[in-house]
Amino acid sequence: MKLSVIRRACGSLRIHPGSRVSGLSHRCPPVAPAGRRSTLRAASGSTGGGTSPKVAVNFGKKSWRGDGFESNSPLKEVVQSTKEAMVALQRSHPSIQPLLAIIQAGEDDSLLEINKKMAGKIGLNVTQICLAEECSEDEIVEELLKLNEDPRVHGVYLHLPQASLTSRVLDTLKPEKDIDGITDLNVGRLARGDLSKGFLSPTASAVLDLLVKHDAPLEGKNALLVGGEGPVALALQCLIEKSGMVAVKINWSSTSLQRQLMQADAVVLLGTGNMDVPSTWFRPGTAIIRCEPNMEPVEHATEISSKFELWYLTAAYRTQNVVHSCCRWIQEKQYRPWLLRSLKLQPLTPVPSDIEISRAQIPKPVNQLAEEVGLLPEELEAYGRNKAKVRLSLLDRLHTQPDGKYVLVAGITPTPLGEGKSTVTIGLVQALSAHLKLNSFACLRQPSQGPTFGVKGGAAGGGYAQVIPMEEFNLHLTGDIHAITAANNLVAAAIDARMLHEATQSDKALFNRLVPSVNGVRRFSPIQISRLRRLGFNKTDPASLTPQEVSTFVRLDLDPSTITWQRVVDTNDRFLRKITVGQASTEKGQIRETGFDIAVASEIMAILALADSLEDMRNRLARMVVGTSRAGQPVTTEDLGVSGALTVLMKDAIKPTLMQTLEGTPVFVHAGPFANIAHGNSSVLADKLALKLVGRDGFVVTEAGFGADIGMEKFFNIKCRASGLRPNVVVLVATVRALKMHGGGPNVSAGAPLPKEYIDENLSLVAGGCHSNLRKQIQIAHLFGVPVVVALNVFKTDTQAEIEHVCQIAKECGASDAVPCHHWAQGGRGSLELAQAVNEAANRPGNFQFLYDIEMPIAEKIRTIAQKVYGADDIELSPTAKDKIDYYNQQGYGLLPICMAKTHLSLSHMPDKKGAPTGFVLPIRDVRASIGAGFIYPLVGTMSTMPGLPTRPCFYDIDLDPVTEEITGLF
Amino acid sequence: MKLSVIRRACGSLRIHPGSRVSGLSHRCPPVAPAGRRSTLRAASGSTGGGTSPKVAVNFGKKSWRGDGFESNSPLKEVVQSTKEAMVALQRSHPSIQPLLAIIQAGEDDSLLEINKKMAGKIGLNVTQICLAEECSEDEIVEELLKLNEDPRVHGVYLHLPQASLTSRVLDTLKPEKDIDGITDLNVGRLARGDLSKGFLSPTASAVLDLLVKHDAPLEGKNALLVGGEGPVALALQCLIEKSGMVAVKINWSSTSLQRQLMQADAVVLLGTGNMDVPSTWFRPGTAIIRCEPNMEPVEHATEISSKFELWYLTAAYRTQNVVHSCCRWIQEKQYRPWLLRSLKLQPLTPVPSDIEISRAQIPKPVNQLAEEVGLLPEELEAYGRNKAKVRLSLLDRLHTQPDGKYVLVAGITPTPLGEGKSTVTIGLVQALSAHLKLNSFACLRQPSQGPTFGVKGGAAGGGYAQVIPMEEFNLHLTGDIHAITAANNLVAAAIDARMLHEATQSDKALFNRLVPSVNGVRRFSPIQISRLRRLGFNKTDPASLTPQEVSTFVRLDLDPSTITWQRVVDTNDRFLRKITVGQASTEKGQIRETGFDIAVASEIMAILALADSLEDMRNRLARMVVGTSRAGQPVTTEDLGVSGALTVLMKDAIKPTLMQTLEGTPVFVHAGPFANIAHGNSSVLADKLALKLVGRDGFVVTEAGFGADIGMEKFFNIKCRASGLRPNVVVLVATVRALKMHGGGPNVSAGAPLPKEYIDENLSLVAGGCHSNLRKQIQIAHLFGVPVVVALNVFKTDTQAEIEHVCQIAKECGASDAVPCHHWAQGGRGSLELAQAVNEAANRPGNFQFLYDIEMPIAEKIRTIAQKVYGADDIELSPTAKDKIDYYNQQGYGLLPICMAKTHLSLSHMPDKKGAPTGFVLPIRDVRASIGAGFIYPLVGTMSTMPGLPTRPCFYDIDLDPVTEEITGLF
Repeated sequence: MKLSVIRRACGSLRIHPGSRVSGLSHRCPPVAPAGRRSTLRAASGSTGGGTSPKVAVNFGKKSWRGDGFESNSPLKEVVQSTKEAMVALQRSHPSIQPLLAIIQAGEDDSLLEINKKMAGKIGLNVTQICLAEECSEDEIVEELLKLNEDPRVHGVYLHLPQASLTSRVLDTLKPEKDIDGITDLNVGRLARGDLSKGFLSPTASAVLDLLVKHDAPLEGKNALLVGGEGPVALALQCLIEKSGMVAVKINWSSTSLQRQLMQADAVVLLGTGNMDVPSTWFRPGTAIIRCEPNMEPVEHATEISSKFELWYLTAAYRTQNVVHSCCRWIQEKQYRPWLLRSLKLQPLTPVPSDIEISRAQIPKPVNQLAEEVGLLPEELEAYGRNKAKVRLSLLDRLHTQPDGKYVLVAGITPTPLGEGKSTVTIGLVQALSAHLKLNSFACLRQPSQGPTFGVKGGAAGGGYAQVIPMEEFNLHLTGDIHAITAANNLVAAAIDARMLHEATQSDKALFNRLVPSVNGVRRFSPIQISRLRRLGFNKTDPASLTPQEVSTFVRLDLDPSTITWQRVVDTNDRFLRKITVGQASTEKGQIRETGFDIAVASEIMAILALADSLEDMRNRLARMVVGTSRAGQPVTTEDLGVSGALTVLMKDAIKPTLMQTLEGTPVFVHAGPFANIAHGNSSVLADKLALKLVGRDGFVVTEAGFGADIGMEKFFNIKCRASGLRPNVVVLVATVRALKMHGGGPNVSAGAPLPKEYIDENLSLVAGGCHSNLRKQIQIAHLFGVPVVVALNVFKTDTQAEIEHVCQIAKECGASDAVPCHHWAQGGRGSLELAQAVNEAANRPGNFQFLYDIEMPIAEKIRTIAQKVYGADDIELSPTAKDKIDYYNQQGYGLLPICMAKTHLSLSHMPDKKGAPTGFVLPIRDVRASIGAGFIYPLVGTMSTMPGLPTRPCFYDIDLDPVTEEITGLF
Repeated sequence: MKLSVIRRACGSLRIHPGSRVSGLSHRCPPVAPAGRRSTLRAASGSTGGGTSPKVAVNFGKKSWRGDGFESNSPLKEVVQSTKEAMVALQRSHPSIQPLLAIIQAGEDDSLLEINKKMAGKIGLNVTQICLAEECSEDEIVEELLKLNEDPRVHGVYLHLPQASLTSRVLDTLKPEKDIDGITDLNVGRLARGDLSKGFLSPTASAVLDLLVKHDAPLEGKNALLVGGEGPVALALQCLIEKSGMVAVKINWSSTSLQRQLMQADAVVLLGTGNMDVPSTWFRPGTAIIRCEPNMEPVEHATEISSKFELWYLTAAYRTQNVVHSCCRWIQEKQYRPWLLRSLKLQPLTPVPSDIEISRAQIPKPVNQLAEEVGLLPEELEAYGRNKAKVRLSLLDRLHTQPDGKYVLVAGITPTPLGEGKSTVTIGLVQALSAHLKLNSFACLRQPSQGPTFGVKGGAAGGGYAQVIPMEEFNLHLTGDIHAITAANNLVAAAIDARMLHEATQSDKALFNRLVPSVNGVRRFSPIQISRLRRLGFNKTDPASLTPQEVSTFVRLDLDPSTITWQRVVDTNDRFLRKITVGQASTEKGQIRETGFDIAVASEIMAILALADSLEDMRNRLARMVVGTSRAGQPVTTEDLGVSGALTVLMKDAIKPTLMQTLEGTPVFVHAGPFANIAHGNSSVLADKLALKLVGRDGFVVTEAGFGADIGMEKFFNIKCRASGLRPNVVVLVATVRALKMHGGGPNVSAGAPLPKEYIDENLSLVAGGCHSNLRKQIQIAHLFGVPVVVALNVFKTDTQAEIEHVCQIAKECGASDAVPCHHWAQGGRGSLELAQAVNEAANRPGNFQFLYDIEMPIAEKIRTIAQKVYGADDIELSPTAKDKIDYYNQQGYGLLPICMAKTHLSLSHMPDKKGAPTGFVLPIRDVRASIGAGFIYPLVGTMSTMPGLPTRPCFYDIDLDPVTEEITGLF
C-alpha cells in the first residue's frame, strides 16, 4: 500500500501524489478464504455460505471482544473476497494500482484511521487530501474536480461533515468514482435496482450484514430506521426491502416512534436526534445498530455490534467498491461492441441538391457518435458539435484488439466528370453499418478548399451518400490544411531569409547570431547539435569549432537553382504558379523565381498521410529536403532549424477528424495528398484507428484517388508498405458512361452536353469498355493478390440490359462479384448488394503481395509499374531523369518506393488513349523526390500543382443567410 | 392549445410539429381560483387551504360521481394554480408556449386522452409522437434525443409500457425535461429532498392529495405501498414519509403482507401482482388507492377515489410540471450571477519561464468555465478541452441585461522592448475576478503566428499574468486567422483570374460564362443582380440587356496599377513583400507586381474586429474596394462575385474564443488587426458579449495596441464609434524604463544590453519622462473625458523611490490614481491595488466625447488628431494625399473616421523624438482607405506590413516531445 498525504492550506506547498508515506503497520489478523460476493448481494436475503452465529454484544457492558475479524464474520468474508479481487486484478493488469482518494477536513479521526488500515490490509493505495477544518465549498469542489480528472483515482471518499456534502459538492463528484453511492445519480440507480453502474453504500451493506449475522433469515421481519435522511438511509431502506424485511424510516420526532419501536425486530439509529427516548420503548430482544459515529450509546439497549465492527465492515466494503471501480475502469478501456444508432433516411424523388439533403438530416452530436463506436471521452477533442479530433492514444489502448477487414475503393479510368468513388465509399459504409449492422468506418481525404470555391464544388459525397454536415466537411474542417499551409510556408520563409542572411553576413557574424551569447554563454540548441552530427563534428562547445567548421556549420550555401520547396495556399490562384520574389529593396536584390502550389500538394500533406505516430511525423518533417547546397549536399528542414516548429504546428493535425454519414455511421476525414505528385490516399493513422474500432468482423473502407492504375497501385506499394496493413478487398467503381467511353464512345468533357451514345442504350460500347479498361484494372488488382468486387455506380440513364451486361462481363473477367449500386438515390439501402458482396469477398483468404521489391534499382521499379500496371512496352528516361536517379542513388534514396506522376485519364501517359492501350513507351521527363514523405516521383508529362479559377467560379452562388446562418450554393 | 400528432412507422412520412390538429373540445367544467402550490408541497403534510371533505367512493358499486372536478377538490386546485401560472407566463413571455411532448406506443388509450384533455384545459401545447406498438428501444431513444434537443419542448411524458423504460431510455431523457421524475438523477434528487432541479412524480403527488383529502391530518398514520418498485413507488414513499405518515413498501408475495395490511390506515396498490388476497385482510375503513391502470378492483374494498379522479389529478400535476419546467427554462436563460471558481496560484521565485508557469497550472475545462460565467451549453462550441467559440445569440438572450464597466488598457510611448500592456490587462482581470470577486473579462487580440516563430515569441502575457494554455493561445487557436487568410487570398485569386478572363474573352463569351445557360435558361445570381443595381440597370432578365449593358456588366475593367488588394500569409516572409505574379505561360503574359502582407494586416481582420453582427460583417465584406476601374470607379468584392463566399469562410471566425487566465478567470480572444495600418484593437463583438456577461457591476478590460496616442485614439474614435460603447476608465501603463527614456535616457534597442541609466536609480530621468510623455498621454485621455489610472509595471531594477516618484507625479498630472503593479511576479495578488483604483475610478461619472465630428472634412480630421493628440503645429499633405482625399470625397467616403498610420515610438512621426515633441509639422505621404472596415488611413512615413525573420528565429528552440506532447521553446 502506498499512502500519499496532501495537506492544503493557505499558501502551503503541495506534496504531490506518488510520494510514498510509510508508517502504517498492518495489524489486522490473517484471514481465511471466503467466497466472492456480488455487489448487490442483499437481493437474496443472505450473505451466502456459512452459518451466521448470533454475536449479540452489549456495548454498554464492554462485552465486545474485538474489531470483527473473528472467523466466519462478514468482515473476514468481504476482506477476503476483496483481496482475491485485488490479486486477480494485479495478475491481469500489473501496471494498474487501485487508488482510493480521501478528502478530509481537519484532523484525522479514528474512523479515517480505520479506513486507512483497511486499505493497507487490502493493498489499496490511498491519497489523502487534508483540507483545513473550515474549508470552503469551493475548495472541496476544486479538489474533487482534480480527482475526477485524475485517471489514477478509482474512488473518492468524502470524509466530511454532513453539512459539507452540499448539492454542488455531490453534483461535482463523478458518479464513476462515487464509491459511497451518495451522488443523486447513484442513489437513483440503486432505487431502480440497477447497480451495473453505481455503487452500493458501504454503510448500508455493512448494516445489512450485521442484521443478517444477528438474525437471519430476515424475511418478514421489521426494521426501523430512525433519524436518517439522505443517500445512506435510502440505500439501507432499499437493501432491507430487498432482503424481504419490512423497512420503516422514521424521524426522532415522529408521533408513532414509540409504536414503531415496539414493533421493530431491528432498529438502526442513523442520525443523532432527540435521544430522550425511554428505554422501555424498545422491545426486549430488539437488535440495535448505531451508525452515527458521534452518537451516544442507547442506555440498556442491546447492540448487535460494536461501532468498530460496523466501521471496519464499512471500510472493507468501501475498499471493495474501489477495487470494483478499478475493474470497471479497466473494463471501460477494453474494446466495446458498438451500440450504433443509425439515422433514418427517407429518400425523396427527384433527389434534392446535396446541401438540401445534408441540411435535412440532423447529425448526432459527435460525442454521442464517439461513444457509440467505443471511443472514450478522453480520446475525443470536439470541434463544435459535429466534428472531433480523435487522439492517437487509442492505438495504445486497443493494441491487442484484432484489426477489422480493410477495403479499398478504386475506380476504372474515369471520364473527366468522375465516376463516383466517394459516393460508393460512403454508400458502402452506410449499407454495412446501418443496414447489415456490421461495424464499418469510411476513411476519407479532406478536400482542398480551392476547388470548393473553384470548379469542382464539395467532396463530401453526393445525393443520399454524404458526409454531414457537408459544409463543415468542405470548409475549414478542423484546420489541418491550414496547419499544413502554415508549416509549409514557414519552411519557405526560412529558406529565403537564410539565403539573405548568408549572403549579407560574415561567418563570424552568422555564428554569433545563430549561437548567441546569453548571459555571456554560447550554447548550441538541440537542433543545431543534430546538424553538427550530420556534418560529422562531434563537438558540443561552440568555442571549440575551428573557423572552417564554423563556416561549414553556419553556411547551408543553398544553390537557389536547386530549391524544390514551393510556397502553398489553399486557393486556386493560378497567378502564383510562377512568380519572382524578393523584389523589395529590403531584400537587397536577392530575387529568384519560384511558385506556389495548392496546399494539399505540400510534401507535409504527404507526410501527414503516411506518418504512423507523432514521432514518425516529427522524423519525417526533419528529413524533408528543400534543395541542394552548392557542394551538392541535400539541405533539410532540420538544417534550417525549423523541424521542431513544424512538428508543433502539426501537432493537432495528426489527429484524424471524426464525422458521420447521412445515416449516422462514422467517418474519419484525414489528410488529402494530391493524387498526381503524391500518393492520393487518406491517412495511415485514420485507417489504423478505424481498424481497431470496428473490431475483427468490422470493415474499414478507404478510397484511392484517380483510377486504380494510379491510386490503387500507390495505395498498395506506398501506403500499405508504410503502414504494414494488408487490404482484404478492392471495390472497383465503374459507370456505364466511362465504360462506353473506353469502348469507343465519343469524347466526354466537363461543361459540354453528353453525346447521345451515353444517354441511349448501347450494349456494344459497354462491352468494349468492359473487355478493355475494366478487365485490365481487375487484372492490376489481382497482381497484388487481392479479390475485386466491381461496383457499378448506376445513373438514371443506364438500362437494365446495360447493367446486367456489365455485371456479367465483370465476373467473366475475374471479379469475385459485380453488382449495381443505387446509393446516390437511395443511400445505404441502395448499396446493400455491394455490402453483401464485399462481406463475402473479405472472408476469402487473401494472398497480398507487393508489385516490386523495394531493393530493386529505381529505374527497374519504374519499369515494373509501367509494364505490369500501365501495359507499356518499356520506359524511356530523359537525361535529366537519369541524372536525378544517379543523384538519388548516391544520396541513399534508392530504397524508396515510386510514386508515379501520370495522367489519370488513360492507363498510358496519353490522356486520349482510352480502353487498355498497348504498344507504347512511357516517357519519364524528370524524377523528383519527397524524402520526408518517403518516395521518388517520376514525372510523366507536366503536372499542374495549382488549379485556376474559371470565369464563373462556384463562389458566385455561395452565400449565407445572416439570420439562420444557413449556407447556400455549396454542392 | 395546439396538438401535433406525429406518427412514426416504417417508411411513412413525418408530419412536422407545428401542424395544428384540432378536434379536442375542452369539456372540463370551469373551476374556481385556488392558491398557488409549491412543488414539494407534501413536506407540510397538507395541500394547504380549504377543508378536505372525505369523498369515499366505492368503485365496485359505481357510486363514483365524476372525474374529480367537484368544488374544493385537489384537482380543481391544481388546475387553477397551473392556469394562473400559465397566464403569468404568457403575460411575461408572450412568445413562449409551454409544450408537452408525449411518446406513445400503439393506439391512444383513455389515460392518454385524459392527459390531452387536461393539457387542453390548461392551454398547453402537445406534440404526440405515436410509435408502433412493437417499437424498438432505438426508436424511442431516437425520438427522445430529438425532444431533448428541441428547445420548444419543456416536458416529455413517456406513455410507454414499463418494460420499455429501460436504463438506456431513462439515461437518454434529459433530466430537465423529465416531468414525471423517473430518471435516476431526478429520483436521487428527490431522495435527498432537493427538488430545485428535478420534478416530483405526478402520480405520487396525486396519490398524496387523495390521501390528504380522505384522511387529513396524516401524521402518525400508516400507509402501505403494495407491489410497487421504481421511481413512482420511491417518490410516493418519500412524499408519504415527509407528510409524517409511516410508509411501508411491500411485495405481493411478502409473508408479512397480511400483517401489514391489517395495520395500514391507507393502502396504495402500485402494481399488479398476486391478487388472491382475501378481502378479510383489509382492515375495515382502510382507504385504498389503485394506481395501476390495468388493475382489477379489489373486491369489497373501500376505494377513496375513482381511477379517473386519480388519472385526472395525475395529468393535472403533469401539466403543472410542464409549466414549471418552462418557467425554469426561461429562468435558465436569464442573466445568472457568476459562480467563478478561481485557480490558486503559488508564485515561485525566481519566476520560471512562461511556458513552465503555463504548464504548471491545470486549466478548468472550458465548458465548466463557461457555465461559471453564465453561458448556456448551447452557446458554446468547444475546440478541444481548453478553448471554445461563443455564439452571438448570447447578445439576443441578454439584450436587456445592463452592460458592465468598460476599461481600456493603453500605454505611454513605449521603448522598442514593449512595456507590458498585455500582462497588465491580464493581471488586472486576475485581481478583479479572483481576488476582489468582481466579475471581469479580459478581451485580447489573437496574435499573429508570424512573430511567434520570428522575433517576438508569444503574446499570451507573461510571468504569473498569462492566458493558458499559452501554446494554444499562440498557435492556431480556433483558426480565425487561417480563415482570414483563406478569405483574403480568395479575393486576390478572383482579381487576377478575372483580369485574365476579361483580357482574353469577348463580351459575349464572358457573358455566356458568367450567366451560363442551365437547361436552356440563363439566370442572374443574386450577387449579379446586386451588381446590376449598382450599375443602375433595373433588369433581371439576362436576355434583355443591350450589348452596351452586357459589356458594362461583364467588364470590371480593373486598372492593374490601382489594385490595393494584397495577398497574405501568417508567416514572417520578407521575400514576399514585393513580387511579380503571373509569370507562368498559362497566364498569357498578364504579369504584374504585387506583394503579400502578414495575415493580420488584411482588411478582413479589421472588419472582423469592427463588425457587430454576422449581417454587418457580410455587408462590410461586400463593400471592400480592391481597386479602381479604368473609368475611375471603385471595384468591390461584390463586383467580383466573391462576397458571399467570404462570409461563408468567416462564419465561424466571427465568434469570439473563450479561454482563461492562470487564475481561471475568463478571457475572450478575438481579432487582432495590425496597429499601424489598422486600428489595433480586439473585436467589438467580444467586448459586447463580455459586457453582458460580467453584469452591471463587472468589468471588461480590453487593450489597445501601441501607445495611447495611437491605440487609444483609434479605440475611441474608430472602435467606440462603431460599437456605440463608452469606456469608463483608461489604464495607462508606464514603466520606469520607458519614462527614463523619455526623460532623456540613452537609446534602448532590442538585442543590445540596457545602458546603466536603466539599471541604477535615476530620479531626474524618471521625472523628466513623467512630465513629458506621461503627462501628455494622460491629457490625451482627458480630451475624451475619460479618467486615467496609471499602472506602473514594476521591474525588479526599479527602486522604491523611483516607484513613488512616478506615482506622485502621475497624480499631479491629473491621473485619478497611480499605482505600482507586480502581476508578473505575483499574479492577480500583485495587481490588487490597481484593481481597487480602477474600481474606484469606474464609479465616477463619465463624460465621454469624440475628438472630432465625423462630418468634418478628411483633412480637418487628420489635422485635429495631429494637433490635439500628437502636439503637431500642422499637417502637410503630399500631392498624392491631396488627390486621394479628393477622390475619396468624390466617392462618398468622406464620412469615415481616420486611422492614422504613424510610428508608435514617438508622439511625433520621428521615432527618435522622445518625450512630448512640439514644433513639428506632420507630413502625410499618402492616404488610403479600408472601405469595408470603414476608415481612411493616412500614411505618415513607411509602414511595413510584412515582418521578416532574423538570422536565428524563435523557431530554433521550438520543439515537442513526441511522447508527452509537451512543447518546449515557446515564450
